[in-house]
Amino acid sequence: MINPQILLSVDELPKEWYNIQADFPKPLPPPEDPDKKRMEFLGQTMIGKCLEQEVSKEKFIKMPEGVVELYLQAGRPRPLMRALKLEEYLRLPSTIRLYYKREDLSPTGSHKVNTALPQAYFAKEEGLKGLTTETGAGQWGSALSYATRLLDLDLVVFWVGNIYDSKPGRLDYMKNQEAIIHRSPSSITEFGRKIQKEFKKTYGKNKKHPGSLGIAISEGLEYASKNEGVKYSLGSVLNHVLMHQTIIGLETIEQFKKIDEEPNVIIGCLGGGSNFGGISLPFAGQVLRGERDWDDIEFIPAQSKAAPNLGGEYRYDYGDVAEQTPMLKMYTLGHKVDMPPILADGLRYHGAAPKISHLIHEKMINIKPRWYETDEKSIMEAAKIFLQTEGWLIAPESSYAVRAMIDRSLEAKRKGEELVMVANISGHGFLDDPFWSAATHISVAKYI
Amino acid sequence: MINPQILLSVDELPKEWYNIQADFPKPLPPPEDPDKKRMEFLGQTMIGKCLEQEVSKEKFIKMPEGVVELYLQAGRPRPLMRALKLEEYLRLPSTIRLYYKREDLSPTGSHKVNTALPQAYFAKEEGLKGLTTETGAGQWGSALSYATRLLDLDLVVFWVGNIYDSKPGRLDYMKNQEAIIHRSPSSITEFGRKIQKEFKKTYGKNKKHPGSLGIAISEGLEYASKNEGVKYSLGSVLNHVLMHQTIIGLETIEQFKKIDEEPNVIIGCLGGGSNFGGISLPFAGQVLRGERDWDDIEFIPAQSKAAPNLGGEYRYDYGDVAEQTPMLKMYTLGHKVDMPPILADGLRYHGAAPKISHLIHEKMINIKPRWYETDEKSIMEAAKIFLQTEGWLIAPESSYAVRAMIDRSLEAKRKGEELVMVANISGHGFLDDPFWSAATHISVAKYI
Repeated sequence: MINPQILLSVDELPKEWYNIQADFPKPLPPPEDPDKKRMEFLGQTMIGKCLEQEVSKEKFIKMPEGVVELYLQAGRPRPLMRALKLEEYLRLPSTIRLYYKREDLSPTGSHKVNTALPQAYFAKEEGLKGLTTETGAGQWGSALSYATRLLDLDLVVFWVGNIYDSKPGRLDYMKNQEAIIHRSPSSITEFGRKIQKEFKKTYGKNKKHPGSLGIAISEGLEYASKNEGVKYSLGSVLNHVLMHQTIIGLETIEQFKKIDEEPNVIIGCLGGGSNFGGISLPFAGQVLRGERDWDDIEFIPAQSKAAPNLGGEYRYDYGDVAEQTPMLKMYTLGHKVDMPPILADGLRYHGAAPKISHLIHEKMINIKPRWYETDEKSIMEAAKIFLQTEGWLIAPESSYAVRAMIDRSLEAKRKGEELVMVANISGHGFLDDPFWSAATHISVAKYI
Repeated sequence: MINPQILLSVDELPKEWYNIQADFPKPLPPPEDPDKKRMEFLGQTMIGKCLEQEVSKEKFIKMPEGVVELYLQAGRPRPLMRALKLEEYLRLPSTIRLYYKREDLSPTGSHKVNTALPQAYFAKEEGLKGLTTETGAGQWGSALSYATRLLDLDLVVFWVGNIYDSKPGRLDYMKNQEAIIHRSPSSITEFGRKIQKEFKKTYGKNKKHPGSLGIAISEGLEYASKNEGVKYSLGSVLNHVLMHQTIIGLETIEQFKKIDEEPNVIIGCLGGGSNFGGISLPFAGQVLRGERDWDDIEFIPAQSKAAPNLGGEYRYDYGDVAEQTPMLKMYTLGHKVDMPPILADGLRYHGAAPKISHLIHEKMINIKPRWYETDEKSIMEAAKIFLQTEGWLIAPESSYAVRAMIDRSLEAKRKGEELVMVANISGHGFLDDPFWSAATHISVAKYI
């Protein structure tokens, strides 16, 4: 009997996050703050425990028992699956084997829950009244609305305007979790009002500002600074966020051990870097510690040409448009860059997480980004191939990872390489109808 | 550490379906066919293996290895969860314990995949070109579109008109699986054209006929009878369908054994009966075989007052409006009854599965149906309570089961009963925005 599932028992759930900072031969460049006000501001607006984890050099950080219990309730550990039907469809030889990790089984439909739960837990421990945040694709806002409701905290979300307009299902989700959602730019922050005013001057009163992740972050930070007992929670980019996400890769390593297999290609989509970091950092740690050879593992971040931040400059840049965050050293397109709209909104961010940028810049791992066209036709095709073979309706963002896995496996087939590949399926697509509706018009290639 | 998950390993997946007909002390009344044409018609339009299973008296029917593999790919076995947070919210004493079975983890979002996969498998084995079916809520159409695509079969779906109009996400899902979908009543069957013509005479040209499950079934049967190599597949009511669904209850029994616990209350929503049958029949079998006492297990089918078929007459009735099916002995409201629209469309059917009707009529099990108001306010409240405590966004239909579990557990608390209860979560609600959108206006009670 053929069994595609590789499962961990509840006892095998990792109980510590992996902090790659402990294994960096050269330390991560610290944040910079030209006029010293921003670090202080951040100290006031961020969850204390998260700030502490942000700079920790401890290699393994123990999860509080309460967080482990929340992970179990959310259905962790998650399956690793062998993509047998996809391999068959692509006519791959048995020397090329494909696997995928199922973060789409998350209660809110994405990996974001992995950091939302500990952040909400730490906020509750700190005695906060509530949290505020920004969201782009809506996955992060959904995840935090889930986590804050479970921990009985208030939540205010600033949601990038044009995406707010196109995803009523996600809006309803967050409302049903009792979150308060503002279309960003909103009228409830000074910065939002300023942006709206300028926009109306240029485009008139009837056009709605489409918003951006940078604007929404600025609004959230302002809101946190002006409301007692409310702190700001971030869903990507920062060190502690990527560390919480390492549970993905840590589980995956255990799962591969069970079948006595070692992956040579690790794939994730990359916007800010949390899902890519989640699957990759524990494997990158193996390379840093010399347990695997540098050229024995290839890392593939799958990106959109709309936001090819890994092809940008490596320099200090702000995380938001209003320049309220300190500057982080990272690959960036510039914090005021205009990015064309795509359906995989979660990939539209100007910079890549400092941890990942550092790994790349110091050539610590063998990493080969791929950039895909903004018409997303090849992405939709990959998503449909995955749907029709493996059977799962995945998120637009995750479809980039699947596209990269298909492309890389066909290259390997042509070159006669023997490869074991794993892609992280960061989320499901049940609340992403704009993407799946467009996909109905895409036809699927036959590989013979 | 508190662990709410009760899991089975892949090896523990049941490999046989349970056929309750073998344990009935008095056999199931056979179908009736006033003018003998319908049985012949059904013989021609149904999958051979399904017809064979429909009348089988074998107690356990072995699943083909290919079906077991399809179940594994679809993520079976599925978790049983202890509803710890819901218990806490309801302030239940530790003598009342709540569990739920997670059919919502299905690839298409419902338990319907459990019968779609074997039906498509048998159709492929028979050498058919394709299948046709009806769908109401859209769960069945989605499940069959998934199964037929995996097995490389064509699929034509007749979808109840007013629901077709309200669920673009499900429509896109089926299209992305390459199914051909007709809004029912359609123009491609004689019966559909006739119904439309009559409707237009009364209501004018601009109004669209809302359709009904009965009409859609009639269209599908006509289509199957007129197209070579195409047979008709049904997603509920019939004996073989409920038998395929017993995998739910069989897994659940194994899971309770693992924690040395025995449920006393078994709950499922009931439209035609496939999800209720799936969770209940294996437990009903324990009663029939004398392994459990009659009054040791209470069965609760949760229904809508829009279609309270278990409160109807027990008699022979047709399964469809056009009277193309043989007559089945069942509790029925009459096959031409008008049922008010509700958001949990999957519960709107005029009759209850013959197997379940027989169990009730012969008083073989202790069964206590519950009927809920058609405004569905109490249902949405239950759905939100479940979302905000357990964290899962469930289907409108499944929310009836949760409502019944909440109500029954609060009664038990008042009466001082000690009870272990399990509800089947038949599906997720990510593609059911009309319901979850309405739910945003419902507030949730506090239990203290």
